[in-house]
Amino acid sequence: MIPIVKGLIEGDRRSLAKAISIVDNREPESREIIREIFGRTGKAKTVGFTGPGGAGKSSLVGRLIPECQALGYKVAVLAVDPTSPITGGAILGDRIRMLGNLGDEKVFMRSMASRGAVGGVSKSLRNAIRVLDAAGYNLILVESVGAGQLEIEITKVVDLTVVLFTPNTGDNVQAVKAGLTEVGDIYVVNKADIDGAGPLYNTIVDLIGDTERKPAVLKTSVKTGRGIKELAQTIDKLLKEKSINYKDRERKMLEEELKVMVSDIVEQKVAVMLSENKKYSAFVDKLARKEIDPYMAAEQVAASLFK
Amino acid sequence: MIPIVKGLIEGDRRSLAKAISIVDNREPESREIIREIFGRTGKAKTVGFTGPGGAGKSSLVGRLIPECQALGYKVAVLAVDPTSPITGGAILGDRIRMLGNLGDEKVFMRSMASRGAVGGVSKSLRNAIRVLDAAGYNLILVESVGAGQLEIEITKVVDLTVVLFTPNTGDNVQAVKAGLTEVGDIYVVNKADIDGAGPLYNTIVDLIGDTERKPAVLKTSVKTGRGIKELAQTIDKLLKEKSINYKDRERKMLEEELKVMVSDIVEQKVAVMLSENKKYSAFVDKLARKEIDPYMAAEQVAASLFK
Repeated sequence: MIPIVKGLIEGDRRSLAKAISIVDNREPESREIIREIFGRTGKAKTVGFTGPGGAGKSSLVGRLIPECQALGYKVAVLAVDPTSPITGGAILGDRIRMLGNLGDEKVFMRSMASRGAVGGVSKSLRNAIRVLDAAGYNLILVESVGAGQLEIEITKVVDLTVVLFTPNTGDNVQAVKAGLTEVGDIYVVNKADIDGAGPLYNTIVDLIGDTERKPAVLKTSVKTGRGIKELAQTIDKLLKEKSINYKDRERKMLEEELKVMVSDIVEQKVAVMLSENKKYSAFVDKLARKEIDPYMAAEQVAASLFK
Repeated sequence: MIPIVKGLIEGDRRSLAKAISIVDNREPESREIIREIFGRTGKAKTVGFTGPGGAGKSSLVGRLIPECQALGYKVAVLAVDPTSPITGGAILGDRIRMLGNLGDEKVFMRSMASRGAVGGVSKSLRNAIRVLDAAGYNLILVESVGAGQLEIEITKVVDLTVVLFTPNTGDNVQAVKAGLTEVGDIYVVNKADIDGAGPLYNTIVDLIGDTERKPAVLKTSVKTGRGIKELAQTIDKLLKEKSINYKDRERKMLEEELKVMVSDIVEQKVAVMLSENKKYSAFVDKLARKEIDPYMAAEQVAASLFK
């Protein structure tokens, strides 16, 4: 067993942090780490938190930690931060510092940068979850800092999705209507202490009341503490209730992961072939001379690659 | 020749608009359209406009159109609009209406939605450019409404990139420093009539003055009309000057496109195999039982696919 894996299994936080960095950056050592820990994974449950910016995800997650610990979970938090390819830097410092104020050694918190393509997030996140799982954390709260595609991607990796809205973020009803209703297992009207929380709650209940799944709808307020305990209990209940289906869900996730990983390998091979193998670069020449169209060229190259 | 291709070649704007919609949405007919027009493409030059939101891209592009027409170009504008996967709708109505106020029948303007994955933008955009090229437009101005990854992707598809900054958008110097300097062939300080334009101009000149490429730096103002003609002339000059290298650039773009298209085909095949072929779904079972790790599984599947 390599030292970093030994360290994280034995509870060394530095090894754990380093291992997450390695899988997040998809460094070559990732492979060795995942290979060694893979057999020890499968115990952790994951909950994603999504919703418009300003909905108070970080604060709510921060308050949820002790409630989940009280229910017996060993909690870790991953904050996924979409990094601009232009600046290359993470923007998560403040949020992490805020969470860090809990001063709680029992909880492990990390931000992850989602570098490169959108698909990269899932890969890094899946492996970071495995590292935490192997280290003994059995409840991993995943907070997305970004929006749109990133959030959708995160919901595919986690066991349960909590969607947050607040009365003071715009376009709430639009967002609920437009598709977030399909991803949420729990809907939360956060900042329930401010005006408009009641009508927003009713709107959400109305909109999702017709669906077959009937997800839970809760009101929370970090300011007054309202609903936080209920949210933790609802998460706990759902994680236990749905446990029968998790095997199926895990299998689907593994199939998706395998598909992406195989495609990545194939893509790299295709790139090398097109630039180095004369048989394939001839297709590029033909394209440049307009002797073949891109669809035809792609099909012929693909056909010649397969057994 | 299918009617829509005949129509767009003969100058029918409706056929042209419909063909662009088809390739933008990647409908099955795309393939037939591209196949039929491909031999007629290769005459158009493309210029991308990028920069932070609020830099005045739309207005500047609108004012550039008549200046480029005066230089003898037949101009088309494509505005690439990143559509949220959640709302699914385009947000470009106002901008297009504004451009439409020119009431100029000689110019063709279209917004494109960039659906699905980031890579989808390049594919739609490349094919929309081909459609316009075949329709006889020889200068295509591509305006990105989005930011970040989308902009980087657009710069890979166009011949020339204009990067806009203004004194009143934040983080200008940071953006210049952090990487946009690498993509621009021309830098523009837009809204040059307002305070801070001079210092911003000097900052940009300083920052990029050391680079080997020495891109042009210009000041423009849509309000006063300053610099617009010069910008059109600079674009024209660069497009003509660099013409020797365009063949190489085109070849690289075609190689990249072929790589992506082959990978897409392979990815679809992999997905079908993993879900339908027992030989491959057995790997998913092994993963679920933790008898193999994801890296090993992916390599074995990939190896068994290739000739």
